[in-house]
Amino acid sequence: MSTLKRERWSRRYGDWFRSVLIEAGIMDYRYPIKGCGVWMPYGFKIRKKVLQILRDLLDSTGHNETLFPLMIPETSLSKESIHVKSFEGECFWVTKGGLTPLKVKYALRPTSETAIAPMLKLWIRSHADLPKKLYQIVSVFRYETKATRPIIRTREVLSFKEAHTSHATLEEAEAQVEEAVEIYKRFFDEMGVPYRISRRPDWDKFAGAVYSLAFDMICPDGRTLQIGTVHNLGQNFSKAFDITYETEKGTQEHIWQTCYGISGRAIAALFSIHGDDHGIVLPPNIAPTQVVIIPILYEEKEEQINKACEDIAAKLKAAKVRAELDLRTDLTPGSKFYYWELRGIPIRVEVGPKDVENNEATIVRRDTLERQTCRMDELVAVVQELGEKMTRDLRRKAWQWMEERVHRVGSLEEARRLLRRRAGIVEVLWCGKAECGHELEGEVKARVLGIPEDVEEKVDGKCVVCGRKAEHVVRAAIAY
Amino acid sequence: MSTLKRERWSRRYGDWFRSVLIEAGIMDYRYPIKGCGVWMPYGFKIRKKVLQILRDLLDSTGHNETLFPLMIPETSLSKESIHVKSFEGECFWVTKGGLTPLKVKYALRPTSETAIAPMLKLWIRSHADLPKKLYQIVSVFRYETKATRPIIRTREVLSFKEAHTSHATLEEAEAQVEEAVEIYKRFFDEMGVPYRISRRPDWDKFAGAVYSLAFDMICPDGRTLQIGTVHNLGQNFSKAFDITYETEKGTQEHIWQTCYGISGRAIAALFSIHGDDHGIVLPPNIAPTQVVIIPILYEEKEEQINKACEDIAAKLKAAKVRAELDLRTDLTPGSKFYYWELRGIPIRVEVGPKDVENNEATIVRRDTLERQTCRMDELVAVVQELGEKMTRDLRRKAWQWMEERVHRVGSLEEARRLLRRRAGIVEVLWCGKAECGHELEGEVKARVLGIPEDVEEKVDGKCVVCGRKAEHVVRAAIAY
Repeated sequence: MSTLKRERWSRRYGDWFRSVLIEAGIMDYRYPIKGCGVWMPYGFKIRKKVLQILRDLLDSTGHNETLFPLMIPETSLSKESIHVKSFEGECFWVTKGGLTPLKVKYALRPTSETAIAPMLKLWIRSHADLPKKLYQIVSVFRYETKATRPIIRTREVLSFKEAHTSHATLEEAEAQVEEAVEIYKRFFDEMGVPYRISRRPDWDKFAGAVYSLAFDMICPDGRTLQIGTVHNLGQNFSKAFDITYETEKGTQEHIWQTCYGISGRAIAALFSIHGDDHGIVLPPNIAPTQVVIIPILYEEKEEQINKACEDIAAKLKAAKVRAELDLRTDLTPGSKFYYWELRGIPIRVEVGPKDVENNEATIVRRDTLERQTCRMDELVAVVQELGEKMTRDLRRKAWQWMEERVHRVGSLEEARRLLRRRAGIVEVLWCGKAECGHELEGEVKARVLGIPEDVEEKVDGKCVVCGRKAEHVVRAAIAY
Repeated sequence: MSTLKRERWSRRYGDWFRSVLIEAGIMDYRYPIKGCGVWMPYGFKIRKKVLQILRDLLDSTGHNETLFPLMIPETSLSKESIHVKSFEGECFWVTKGGLTPLKVKYALRPTSETAIAPMLKLWIRSHADLPKKLYQIVSVFRYETKATRPIIRTREVLSFKEAHTSHATLEEAEAQVEEAVEIYKRFFDEMGVPYRISRRPDWDKFAGAVYSLAFDMICPDGRTLQIGTVHNLGQNFSKAFDITYETEKGTQEHIWQTCYGISGRAIAALFSIHGDDHGIVLPPNIAPTQVVIIPILYEEKEEQINKACEDIAAKLKAAKVRAELDLRTDLTPGSKFYYWELRGIPIRVEVGPKDVENNEATIVRRDTLERQTCRMDELVAVVQELGEKMTRDLRRKAWQWMEERVHRVGSLEEARRLLRRRAGIVEVLWCGKAECGHELEGEVKARVLGIPEDVEEKVDGKCVVCGRKAEHVVRAAIAY
């Protein structure tokens, strides 16, 4: 880790990411099945904090948590014809129970629309049952044929958060899409992860959706990563599964549905956007441990120093700060610094002989590694304030970093040049025709992310591909 | 539900259990795969409370939560020969990725020893890495050929809590078994679920274990249900996977392991032991909603009554009581009583016109349905005290109910007679020989649960099967 110089970090991002996961005790990918990893204890604690933020957001907006079965009979998966075409080639299939071949094979859920639909059909009878907003946090499975990458592209997608909502009208489904986007914005804002929201082109929307909105972030290597999606399913699944409700007028109508999901990639985004040569950097609201206290022992003062550290830990805990005291005797202070920096603990408090003498402590913030001295009786307040400042700074810096990597350009050539050196996202004008979209993708060797959903803009100019009148701004990037 | 008379409840327990799950919004088993159910929103909330109790117990005793992959390659599963023999016939097997047959087929975890072992081999190097106490909460999968039953016998066992520990010595593993038993006792005590702990006979221990201890409870129909198990694995898996550590002396030794698990059956036990004709009954510490407040409206006093109910809700919430106010206008008070009784809410507060006049409220406890009147300014204290009393009473009554169903008998005939009418657990004297154990099972048409692990007793008498000197008390029962 420490051999990676800062300027090289972004170029060697893939290596950095893989090694930081395992060295910091977050995730181990050496499991004997390709693309399957283990959430280790420390990683699991971070995951729990991240999930809690999302659970709170979903619970407070009327979503109910549930748990649906893992296996989906092929007969269910195949009911929505576009859906099955997209997924059957990338499902893991269970074909045997014990030593007996199954009559109908079961897919490991690649996503849960077709697991949930048969139950909605049983549960929804009338308009009084609507809206119904459910979610679950589960693993989903994709038989990826592309190269797998820890968290980012896996075969078992651990901790997939998927919400599924049912509504009486198209308008309500549309409003739900807006609510979902707001929830996800707040979720990523909590983690200080910057994003662009784009309406995916028709050829890249979720299989079975009317349209798909997606959150993309830019990784340190300039590639984009899709970190969240929101889909309006219209009546595609409700018609395929014949899910109807009785309207107030007594007629039967098919329900309108949306679904939206965020995977473990949100956590990959968190590490990638704030990390540095020393390891990951966690915003204080996510960090399982917010402050670590490390005694710098010198023989005569050992007792006094340890006592001061214990006092600090007690005071911080009383103020509801998640503090940990590192009294390990087999490690030097330097090794402890390395250990906790790797794990991204936001604030380190050091107490040495001089500090004890002066009734002070030294405080180091993880993101900038700046040191400051602080009077003992002000320590809790200083730590709390520094934590808030660090949260703000991380978010601001991350957003600034991303903004610098979104480029509005006027020609295919310029777009190609920027994308060749992985400069981030390029925005060009587009007539909106699929054929020009595909040509754009071919010309710049990148993927069309779609039309901006996060900013409104009057478009005036010509499509960079065909030269006809442009209808939209469109984004393209080298995507993971 | 309400058509089931109390005396019939225990005999029709199977029907009761199935219908209460779905009617109370706990679990729906009408999923298109046999033996797979859906945790519905209310059930999920109860599950969450139950899991939190166990998580707190495990976290506070040095266990770390993790998450291992679902799929286990056949090559890993087959390393421990006894283990694979027991499980290969009841695994679901993934044989295809997309449209391609897999070279090595994958089992959906029936339990996770062989998913964890290859990782322990990477993680454990020296005695400093021990003990290592991990756990995870996941679904496990068994291709059950017996009749499936909601929660009790399923193909996807939702929310299986499995702990896996690694130790330097046999003694430490033994001590861990004891700790695990203590943790599970506290867990079941929290839920007021009574149990017997037995050391399973060798022919019924976990495949790959040196020995297995099991918690059994008695269901209302007199059958026993295994609700928790603790296994000492010795070095069976560490030798099969060659997991060694460097001792303080510098030699290499295989690690010693234990594992222990509790499934969704713990929740089935909770419902079964406290439930009645009106539905489930939840101890206040488990109930997602502890108190429901229902206005009994009469036209002139509507506003006053609703106001009084809101005041009560606010006061209870301020005192950290999980209170809910049922202001639905489309339901009569009677329907609301039915609704909340079915869901087992511990305490109901009713406020009618007379109550408002007298500055009082009526309090009804769910287990006995006893009513009492209470002054408004004493309500919070009365509710809190009643909650504690109810927790104690439920536990005491459940234990008493079980004790009455454990019978020490002196002959095979008496054992047979009791078991034929499903009277619970019988205890007889036994020489300890497997052949007598099997003969006992055949004679009484029941299963040997094993030797008491929860009481120590000097045995003096003869084996009920062969008449030789008895070495043990042994328990038998009709088991689920």
